[in-house]
Amino acid sequence: MTTATDTSTVYDQLIDRIKDIDLLGGSATVLGWDQEVMMPPGGIEYRARQLAQLAGLRHEWFTDPRVDELLSACEADGELNADPLSPPAVNVRELRRDYARKTKLPSELVAEEAKLASLGQHSWAEARKKSDFEHFRPVLEQIVDLLRRKAECYGWAVGGEPWDALAEDFEPGCTAEFVAGVFGPLRDRLQAFLTKLMDGPRKPSNTFNEVEIPIPEQEKFNRIVAEAIGYDFKRGRLDTSTHPFTTGSHCNDIRITTRYRADGFNDALAGTMHECGHGMYEQGLPPEHIGTPMSASISLGIHESQSRMWENQVGRSLAFWKWCHPRVVDSFGDRLEGLTLDDAYGSANNVRPGFIRVEADEATYNMHVMVRFELERAILNGDLAVKDIPGQWNAKYKEYLGVDVPDDARGCLQDIHWSMAAMGYFPTYTLGNLYCAQFFEQALKDMPNLHEQFEAGEFGELKTWLNKNIHAHAKRYRAADLCEHLTGKPLSADPLMRHLEAKFGPLYGI
Amino acid sequence: MTTATDTSTVYDQLIDRIKDIDLLGGSATVLGWDQEVMMPPGGIEYRARQLAQLAGLRHEWFTDPRVDELLSACEADGELNADPLSPPAVNVRELRRDYARKTKLPSELVAEEAKLASLGQHSWAEARKKSDFEHFRPVLEQIVDLLRRKAECYGWAVGGEPWDALAEDFEPGCTAEFVAGVFGPLRDRLQAFLTKLMDGPRKPSNTFNEVEIPIPEQEKFNRIVAEAIGYDFKRGRLDTSTHPFTTGSHCNDIRITTRYRADGFNDALAGTMHECGHGMYEQGLPPEHIGTPMSASISLGIHESQSRMWENQVGRSLAFWKWCHPRVVDSFGDRLEGLTLDDAYGSANNVRPGFIRVEADEATYNMHVMVRFELERAILNGDLAVKDIPGQWNAKYKEYLGVDVPDDARGCLQDIHWSMAAMGYFPTYTLGNLYCAQFFEQALKDMPNLHEQFEAGEFGELKTWLNKNIHAHAKRYRAADLCEHLTGKPLSADPLMRHLEAKFGPLYGI
Repeated sequence: MTTATDTSTVYDQLIDRIKDIDLLGGSATVLGWDQEVMMPPGGIEYRARQLAQLAGLRHEWFTDPRVDELLSACEADGELNADPLSPPAVNVRELRRDYARKTKLPSELVAEEAKLASLGQHSWAEARKKSDFEHFRPVLEQIVDLLRRKAECYGWAVGGEPWDALAEDFEPGCTAEFVAGVFGPLRDRLQAFLTKLMDGPRKPSNTFNEVEIPIPEQEKFNRIVAEAIGYDFKRGRLDTSTHPFTTGSHCNDIRITTRYRADGFNDALAGTMHECGHGMYEQGLPPEHIGTPMSASISLGIHESQSRMWENQVGRSLAFWKWCHPRVVDSFGDRLEGLTLDDAYGSANNVRPGFIRVEADEATYNMHVMVRFELERAILNGDLAVKDIPGQWNAKYKEYLGVDVPDDARGCLQDIHWSMAAMGYFPTYTLGNLYCAQFFEQALKDMPNLHEQFEAGEFGELKTWLNKNIHAHAKRYRAADLCEHLTGKPLSADPLMRHLEAKFGPLYGI
Repeated sequence: MTTATDTSTVYDQLIDRIKDIDLLGGSATVLGWDQEVMMPPGGIEYRARQLAQLAGLRHEWFTDPRVDELLSACEADGELNADPLSPPAVNVRELRRDYARKTKLPSELVAEEAKLASLGQHSWAEARKKSDFEHFRPVLEQIVDLLRRKAECYGWAVGGEPWDALAEDFEPGCTAEFVAGVFGPLRDRLQAFLTKLMDGPRKPSNTFNEVEIPIPEQEKFNRIVAEAIGYDFKRGRLDTSTHPFTTGSHCNDIRITTRYRADGFNDALAGTMHECGHGMYEQGLPPEHIGTPMSASISLGIHESQSRMWENQVGRSLAFWKWCHPRVVDSFGDRLEGLTLDDAYGSANNVRPGFIRVEADEATYNMHVMVRFELERAILNGDLAVKDIPGQWNAKYKEYLGVDVPDDARGCLQDIHWSMAAMGYFPTYTLGNLYCAQFFEQALKDMPNLHEQFEAGEFGELKTWLNKNIHAHAKRYRAADLCEHLTGKPLSADPLMRHLEAKFGPLYGI
């Protein structure tokens, strides 16, 4: 018999339990993927019950007081915690954090949230169909009320605000103040830059976006690119779904999806490379720690930095298109008469301020995110009433992007997030772009000939660099700490602005 | 609060528990399907742990003494059992049967079986590669010893034998005596018929089996046929795997697979129709009883009767080919120059005695099964030593099929079943063929113009008949009872022999 005072055994006992709980989560992950990608429509009702069962078991097993006891025993073990960045110490730290959060919410509030999120999505879908925010307003008011109570349960640091408590679910350690500190300068510089860009004397070619390529041929090509940039098909799949996503039970079984339109070659390729970035992050997590925080990603922001790395820094670079253009011509030549490198590269880099986030380009995308962050922060602080969202939304779109939002459906009703009771999520998209640019500047310092490599179809050195400097650390650092550790500087808007100016300046002749 | 003496509530409590346990099984089903059809190779180790976890939980929940208490309370309820064929009575009867069987085996024996089955498959694969039965013999001896002990634990009826106890897992209520009683006459008549057939003055055309058709085109065609005969794609999928199979969590989410070879059009089509038959049985089970025995199939034999129905009675009939032939010509015409209806129909009906079961045709297939049944029955009764299997195997193949088995790999080592500790399984293949023929004779009595319907591409009336007379009953009857109930006669070899004689006589000019 082992006793709880034998600390090395206590850690093993804890990890055995956690790995068992992770198996339940891993099964739910496969069922969730199957539901989106494979399941026939008839399966939906039973599937919902399967997922609820697994979620219930997982919660029950994880919040068992025995987990608390084992965690306390591990925390009391000086040897285990001698190096706070060692895998056991990191696992104990992260599991304690999860345990504390999971046990802070009363179960009535969790049930209320599940109910409101379901109601919210339903009401939002109706409202969007009618383009009528007023239809959604009463439920959104209830959701905001609930989220403020949820934030109170979690609590936040002195000087912080409710938004911080909610963002912890997506971006641990991130505060509204931190976000505002980086977003402020980004917004000002981006606004000035976009004005200059739109007034520039040139425009990049758009001809490649006007060509139709049959979907089976696109699928073949996307698979070749995914393999070329390093997505591992022995430990991953690539399928098609309505909305592209990445999921996976563990680093050796990752599933990414993309979507195709005959006239959307660039969208599909960018989407595939984006999800490959997410997938390669997951595949790069340490296999020896599967089932524990030391084999899990840091945050949504860091995740997005990896997807944007391959989508934007690689996939929209001139170097990449020097490699990709002849391959495209080779594969679809008969449909691409006279398509030049400039056409291909330009078509991947058109900037068009608009009012739909998911259709936004690399340069304007962050403006969409900043509008949402500013609004949700004000809502949670009580500085903005739900009824005033449409007016504020439209005013900010006019100010930041110079566009007139035509209606609520294409305005404040376009995203599903708030209806699912998710606030604190949107900024992770822009944090990802910022981390991405700062990481890539560092990568270029460490490997100055990266672009020459891309031109030659060599992507392995960048992947290895990301594996070593980001993926292998799993949850060892918080996002902001990883950034300082890797680049020597806190996160800033400078690298992203430098990147955008260096790329779009020449394309728009400014 | 409800108490265990309120019997209607007791039944609901029982069913709620059983449905919860079924959800775990349903999740394991999806994970198993995913492993065979979708999972990247890297996922295998974690997947084994996921499946073991779900199997463990399922066993733990089902063998909980509370299930026994609830069952006893239900059994004591006169009203519930007033009609022993009502869904509640059938559910209680079947759950009691499962509970009794699951709790009869000591857990050491279950563990030993799992270990031996794993060891057995490994040793068998090696032995088959080397074509050396002696390599497999020691493990098979251990397996036989274990199976005899397992049979002792289960027990069997007075006058029965160990084989009966094991067959219960696959064909409830079936005994070796029953099987021998039907197989005996079948073997004698089949042997005489095959001799006549092989000496017949004609042979059917085989030209359609010599044509190559690209796999993507075959896939498209197989999907059209599957849909035409009534497989419901809103509640099912059709994919590709190494070995075709059918699985599904419940009647609204069924997954079938098939396999393709460019030069194997008929094999693929027959395989697809076979699995469609399994799938349509599952899709035809009562949705209102999902998760309970009243939404589960009777036995492997009845399952096989449904797959053979669509594969053989429909898919190899002249009427079907009158419908299918012009469609084949339409789809692949340029590759099928001059292919006549006789060529197409004949190519689906070539008889060739051989020594490989899975390559056998409709007429010789049952001989392969009967060899295996006779051997495993003798082994379990202690009348045949494991070391004497190869000699007996080869002698029976010579006697029944007139072929000389060239080596163990193509002889007694060809099947995986015994290495997995599965004895009592093989006869369900032939029982399926027998039930199928007897059911189809009845269907023709009830719907005399069935063949005219097939010729016109109408398969709905047969499907509805099967739904009503077989599928809707779920586990209400034992296989033999269903047969008597539906056809008015006990199972016999006559309908199958009449079918084979009526079909192959003309094709071989006898």
